[in-house]
Amino acid sequence: MNSSRVIARWVSDGAGAWNETAMLGARRAFHDTVACMLAGSGETAPMNVHACVVGWGAGECTIVGTPSRLSAPWAALVNGTAAHALDFDDVLEIGAAHASAVLVPALLALGEEHDVSVDACLDAYLTGLEVLARLSEAVNMAHYYRGWHTTLTLGAPAVAAACSRLLQLDEKRTLAAISLATSSSSGFKRQFGTMAKPVHAGLAAKNGLMAAGMAAAGVTADEEVFEGPGGFLPLFAGTEIWRLEHSVARIGEPSAMEQYGMWQKLYPCCASLHRPVDALLELRTEQGLRPNDVACIEAVVSEIAVQNLAFHRPANAMQARFCLPYTLASVLIDGQLALDAFTSQAIEREKVDVLIPVITMQADAKQVGTAIAGKERERATVNICLKDGTTLSRVAVDPRGHPRNPLTARDRDKKFYDCASRSLSAEASMRALACLNGLDSISDIRALTDALRPKGERPDA
Amino acid sequence: MNSSRVIARWVSDGAGAWNETAMLGARRAFHDTVACMLAGSGETAPMNVHACVVGWGAGECTIVGTPSRLSAPWAALVNGTAAHALDFDDVLEIGAAHASAVLVPALLALGEEHDVSVDACLDAYLTGLEVLARLSEAVNMAHYYRGWHTTLTLGAPAVAAACSRLLQLDEKRTLAAISLATSSSSGFKRQFGTMAKPVHAGLAAKNGLMAAGMAAAGVTADEEVFEGPGGFLPLFAGTEIWRLEHSVARIGEPSAMEQYGMWQKLYPCCASLHRPVDALLELRTEQGLRPNDVACIEAVVSEIAVQNLAFHRPANAMQARFCLPYTLASVLIDGQLALDAFTSQAIEREKVDVLIPVITMQADAKQVGTAIAGKERERATVNICLKDGTTLSRVAVDPRGHPRNPLTARDRDKKFYDCASRSLSAEASMRALACLNGLDSISDIRALTDALRPKGERPDA
Repeated sequence: MNSSRVIARWVSDGAGAWNETAMLGARRAFHDTVACMLAGSGETAPMNVHACVVGWGAGECTIVGTPSRLSAPWAALVNGTAAHALDFDDVLEIGAAHASAVLVPALLALGEEHDVSVDACLDAYLTGLEVLARLSEAVNMAHYYRGWHTTLTLGAPAVAAACSRLLQLDEKRTLAAISLATSSSSGFKRQFGTMAKPVHAGLAAKNGLMAAGMAAAGVTADEEVFEGPGGFLPLFAGTEIWRLEHSVARIGEPSAMEQYGMWQKLYPCCASLHRPVDALLELRTEQGLRPNDVACIEAVVSEIAVQNLAFHRPANAMQARFCLPYTLASVLIDGQLALDAFTSQAIEREKVDVLIPVITMQADAKQVGTAIAGKERERATVNICLKDGTTLSRVAVDPRGHPRNPLTARDRDKKFYDCASRSLSAEASMRALACLNGLDSISDIRALTDALRPKGERPDA
Repeated sequence: MNSSRVIARWVSDGAGAWNETAMLGARRAFHDTVACMLAGSGETAPMNVHACVVGWGAGECTIVGTPSRLSAPWAALVNGTAAHALDFDDVLEIGAAHASAVLVPALLALGEEHDVSVDACLDAYLTGLEVLARLSEAVNMAHYYRGWHTTLTLGAPAVAAACSRLLQLDEKRTLAAISLATSSSSGFKRQFGTMAKPVHAGLAAKNGLMAAGMAAAGVTADEEVFEGPGGFLPLFAGTEIWRLEHSVARIGEPSAMEQYGMWQKLYPCCASLHRPVDALLELRTEQGLRPNDVACIEAVVSEIAVQNLAFHRPANAMQARFCLPYTLASVLIDGQLALDAFTSQAIEREKVDVLIPVITMQADAKQVGTAIAGKERERATVNICLKDGTTLSRVAVDPRGHPRNPLTARDRDKKFYDCASRSLSAEASMRALACLNGLDSISDIRALTDALRPKGERPDA
């Protein structure tokens, strides 16, 4: 049986036996993603996307952080864009993909449209995550390294699987949904630093949701789309690696959530920055460093990180999130890396201008190409020369928030509150937080989405 | 200046100087595509897509051949799917792409939404066709040969260019629109023979329209998306051919419509079948052949045609359009190849069952790989052995309807009427035909779309 069919059969019939570890992981993913959507909803990218689609379909689906409601595909598109707008949302490391920013918005929209339970959404989420993880194992890092933005390329079929599960489609229609979604799988990492990057998350959410909708309505598609000649694997990953058959043979055992876990970010910027930021923050705290003490900083990172961090001096906040010199300068000045580091005001600080020229980035000769994928743990080294001649160095491996170095409950709630209060009042933020922390006791998904719409004025955050 | 920018600058500022040959070609393309949409609108694929999207956004845009109206992206999606549902719509041969099935539905929808003139739509059409042709020159046939379905991969950015032109976006936003559209450029030729194939035309129309809408609303995107590292050309066409700079240097001079022209089909099936069908029809007529006379038929076609015609015995009408033995059997039996050859009833004919096993297909050793692209004219040879020992052979080069062998006015009107009368009454079909034949005297695009909605009952076609 070909892998496309194995996946579809499992999604329609085999998924659902989640243990408490997986369910807890899913609840935390919703918690973290809703935080990012609430923080991101006021950003330019989702607001522009919202302005584009608002005349194209009223509906019952919440546009998170706003009083607006639109039809399911537009809600998935706008909320997906919001979830990823600040690059603060979680990462499935094996996929180098923003998993929850594509899955959660699609499932909230479809769940609201069909008035389903929270548990049905969590089940569908874990199902989609599983498909994303197995596809990721099959094509990465070769696929990502070529330049594909996996959040969209792998996200769209994963969302199609999740939405098929939520709609309880049979095997044949689930297979059509996943296959159809590959016709909307595109997007290059070249878009990093532009609004198109968060839009990719929105497109994955919308496209996967629509593929499931079209399949539910009877649209047919090729049934061997991954491994067949001229299909997903040969066109998206070349011939060097095809592990899909091997991966899907073990689908769900254990679940991707248990096997990999989610990397929930502590800093609102590209994941490739988190290791050097951790290393510099540790050194700064331990040594009591101040910007004036520093003669130069060198960060040695993986080749893929160099690829992702293409900006040397940011022109705007979108680029700043993919700029190592700016981010490290900001950390050195502020002693932290919070949402307000990525504003035009912060970027234009004079102190930043002074520091950027002395901060450099090097590719680690031991972490080149696709070699770091899966087997070896990625690392970053920060080397500092002080003006007094002292040299300091620190290596970071698993950054804070990584599955092997998870956030504390306090970190998570602080992140939620910081994020939510950008679009909800203080009181509404606390209510939304309580709702997310008590997700196991809420039956109806609309009880959650209801808590994500501001009732009064938007706060001046 | 990189090619993405050259294209965007030309679209926003350089296009528009069309001579009468180009304008006539554009009017004929609308004529032919509207015929295909009217014929296709009752097919399962667009009806299923319509059923999927109907709850997601009411609007003012005509769903051709139906009384329904939806918002612009859904109209583009449904009408694009209808335009390509019967594989009867035109082909830009250099792109191996169904050009008008993606451009016309998008422009009708956006044109209706913004209440523009017919001439503005024709100008935008020629602009989009130009972009499609130059992208095609740059990547084909290597891109198509790999397995990409150019109707969607090249169609989406071409539609984005056309819609940007219609919306009169400036250079910067036009560039963003075209760049954003590449994030929805996907789809494999593996989908041939399934409903996903016509859906690809709908997706190209919708995705290009949405990319222009998002760019108009201020969404930004990478400004060197075609030639930049990790962009469209390296990921979609590899490194073997990159002629984009060369192609765009001459953009519009002469226009693609003059340089290449459109292949308007006489038969509702895969373009790769038209040469052998012509050859067999000629032999049948000249020799007065009947099915019983024939011992065997061999068709020698290009390797790409063999790739496209993957079905040896069709399970349904979608597959029959990509099946050489069925199509030639049908031609031999009926002495023609009309819309009703592609119904389950026709496919299940006993006479067809008898003929299919004696009809074979061979790849021509001289037309392999990407070699036939552009320079050499594709050809097909049909060899027949009769039961009395006679052998017959015929070569077809430019099939009927090809730019070098164009349809007559009578062919075009007959095709239009046959197509239109499947969803409009006889009287309404004649009115629509008159409207399309008098397109140069109609100012408002809504006068055209108004003629494409049935006013009373749907005919039992």
